[in-house]
Amino acid sequence: MSEQRRFLLSDNQIPTTWFNVKPHLPNGCPPPLHPGTKQPVGPEDLAALFPAGLIEQETTLAPEVDIPGEIIDKYRLWRPTPLVRAVGLERALDTPARIYYKYEGVSPVGSHKTNSSIPQVYYNMLEGRRRVTTETGAGQWGAALALAAEQYGLACDIWMVKVSYHQKPGRRTLMRAFGATVRPSPSPETEAGRRILAEHPDSPGSLGIAISEAVEVAAQDPTASYALGSVLDHVILHQTIVGQEVRLQLEMAGEEPDVMLACAGGGSNFGGFALPFVPDRVKRPGLRLVAVEPAACPSLTRGVYAYDFGDMIGLTPLLKMHTLGSQFVPPPVHAGGLRFHAMSPLVSAAYDQGLIEATSVKQREVFEAALAFTRTEGILPAPESSHAICAAMKEAVRCREEGKSECIVVNVSGHGFLDTSSYDSYLDGTLEDYEYPAEEIAAAMASLPQV
Amino acid sequence: MSEQRRFLLSDNQIPTTWFNVKPHLPNGCPPPLHPGTKQPVGPEDLAALFPAGLIEQETTLAPEVDIPGEIIDKYRLWRPTPLVRAVGLERALDTPARIYYKYEGVSPVGSHKTNSSIPQVYYNMLEGRRRVTTETGAGQWGAALALAAEQYGLACDIWMVKVSYHQKPGRRTLMRAFGATVRPSPSPETEAGRRILAEHPDSPGSLGIAISEAVEVAAQDPTASYALGSVLDHVILHQTIVGQEVRLQLEMAGEEPDVMLACAGGGSNFGGFALPFVPDRVKRPGLRLVAVEPAACPSLTRGVYAYDFGDMIGLTPLLKMHTLGSQFVPPPVHAGGLRFHAMSPLVSAAYDQGLIEATSVKQREVFEAALAFTRTEGILPAPESSHAICAAMKEAVRCREEGKSECIVVNVSGHGFLDTSSYDSYLDGTLEDYEYPAEEIAAAMASLPQV
Repeated sequence: MSEQRRFLLSDNQIPTTWFNVKPHLPNGCPPPLHPGTKQPVGPEDLAALFPAGLIEQETTLAPEVDIPGEIIDKYRLWRPTPLVRAVGLERALDTPARIYYKYEGVSPVGSHKTNSSIPQVYYNMLEGRRRVTTETGAGQWGAALALAAEQYGLACDIWMVKVSYHQKPGRRTLMRAFGATVRPSPSPETEAGRRILAEHPDSPGSLGIAISEAVEVAAQDPTASYALGSVLDHVILHQTIVGQEVRLQLEMAGEEPDVMLACAGGGSNFGGFALPFVPDRVKRPGLRLVAVEPAACPSLTRGVYAYDFGDMIGLTPLLKMHTLGSQFVPPPVHAGGLRFHAMSPLVSAAYDQGLIEATSVKQREVFEAALAFTRTEGILPAPESSHAICAAMKEAVRCREEGKSECIVVNVSGHGFLDTSSYDSYLDGTLEDYEYPAEEIAAAMASLPQV
Repeated sequence: MSEQRRFLLSDNQIPTTWFNVKPHLPNGCPPPLHPGTKQPVGPEDLAALFPAGLIEQETTLAPEVDIPGEIIDKYRLWRPTPLVRAVGLERALDTPARIYYKYEGVSPVGSHKTNSSIPQVYYNMLEGRRRVTTETGAGQWGAALALAAEQYGLACDIWMVKVSYHQKPGRRTLMRAFGATVRPSPSPETEAGRRILAEHPDSPGSLGIAISEAVEVAAQDPTASYALGSVLDHVILHQTIVGQEVRLQLEMAGEEPDVMLACAGGGSNFGGFALPFVPDRVKRPGLRLVAVEPAACPSLTRGVYAYDFGDMIGLTPLLKMHTLGSQFVPPPVHAGGLRFHAMSPLVSAAYDQGLIEATSVKQREVFEAALAFTRTEGILPAPESSHAICAAMKEAVRCREEGKSECIVVNVSGHGFLDTSSYDSYLDGTLEDYEYPAEEIAAAMASLPQV
């Protein structure tokens, strides 16, 4: 009889509150500023785009926020998710470390994104909004929002970066299966899209353009809201369901974590997994919470902590973030997602205050780690998640070298069944590493706004 | 608090024996015959292709067969799999029926096929074979065998039907990720492949050709075995892990099933799920075990029960099966898998002896049902599995019309994340139904061998 591998919670063990890290940050978290006045934005500034329920969550200082029963009922579609002891990986690495992974790939769209899309659509539904709009790149967030909109009977309009729309059709199919309307961006349906198309009829699109289209449509339609899949405080809040389940599951396993790792792009995956352990980290400084980012988009490890725009055009409020500058674009060779130029304000504040650490990994080692995980644990991880797996494996090797039996917990945010073309590139040997020269990073930061 | 949705077994509740239906078939199961002598084949006839451990399982009459601990340990990579109450689907159908689904899509390759690939490679490893070969169409079985070979350190050579190799690369990537060598078939590596290529350089390939290539290589290499993903008795035996878990989970739920449904192509999925309930069916004739097949490949509902070849070329032993004739090929428009011309001998015998029933469904209603399931249960099912979902939904509607609160259990054999192009065809309105004219079926059956 082998050791227990899977630590499963029952249906009624889903946490009933979200965890708010704000009261646990010694220096708090600087507020968003209005780009014109440079004064903190108020709820009224956000009302055109977001429902009041979410705006309240964006600003609350309550240590926990009740999860409505209707949301928990929807979470039950796939939650609680498993925590698994990676016995195969441990054996392959010949490490005295105990490695556990939390697996969010069991969600309907194969990633953690539904943890926030469900509550976002719920609060929109409560206020009578009948439509949600968003942008999506490869489609992780678009698919999650499409699912949530379908669950609550709202229409869902998604602008998908045109090059992904045509080259990565898998998640587009998923969005359509959930009844959403998916348009390649730039599209002729919006003023922003028409303007781009007039100048560049063959534009491949970008997240920045797609955001403009989705925001424009939501702002003009009083029955519609815009929805964002990461970065904002309420998105991180929703994702804390993950870390709180991990806590219960580690208790089941009789473990106290030494190192917890998750990949970080906008920050919602890392934040939801690790920030609920900030109070533990305060009490026990040996606990390491590690954000893992791509060397091709290193906002925490190479950016600065400054007020910046969330979008390329400069329409959003100014957010205090670790940022590479809003004009920063990862190189086309980068295949593994996590492309946002900055890190969420909450994760950035925790980093600035020394509560978490960060590391970056290169994409060839990321895919190598992903294949090792696939072969030993039998799960093809999303390229994004594989960044964290790569860093976790390095920690396990360190444990072997130092003879330490640490408890390593890694968040596997999703599966890679819809990312097989990236794996093919790696297996074909056509993926290259890229690290920015310092002057290129500095040039991107020249775009930072004066505050 | 809503009703319990998920019925989860713990790591140590994986069944420790496979279930053998043979002793429960009142008239037994006719043996395979040698195509030349028309006499029953003996173990020695099979030894060139299969290891003794599997040949013994192919012929045993023991009511149960112990599962070696090393196999159970590998099964723990993804087993036990969940049984879920489909509360969302029940609500959408407004049915008094209680619908449960067993979900095999959590396996490393997203389908039930690993239940047999693991033991098949294990017994090959025990006898010192160092290589397994197989054919694959869209890649379900190929990916499963690749995973198993990787787990036990054997080489794995897969011949993949050329048109699928190029048009459905997702599972090819998975096979590569597990370290297998995948060749488009027909290939220049075999005599069979070279012969076809000489005549038809642009041949898109077929399962029949790919089988010939894989068998040729295994037969010529004493360190290699051929492995088959369905049809044979030992494959069905391995798959009974599914039905036995379902039994435990239905007990947890306090349920006794009224109707159990699974899709049937070669028969391993249906057989593994339903045949363990044959003894229940004998005691309680009200229990219905329903095999669901596509109208485009209706071996049980429109075939005859006769001795036939397993392959198109006529190399295999003769098996007593419900068959459409070994020259039968489903129409190109058929998108949903389940393309084998006949049904496994064990499932065929159970059908012939009135222990199970069969029904066929058309592909447009299958994809319509799949989308209803996706929208209500949050899982994109494999097109194959969706045949069973479609039939289960019809049963639930019947329950509503008749005011009956029956317990319906359906096996969802895999997920559809690697089948999104078929969903696109349906959503685009380009999928058509096809039903064979009677004379076409009759013509295909003219190829049946004389026994």
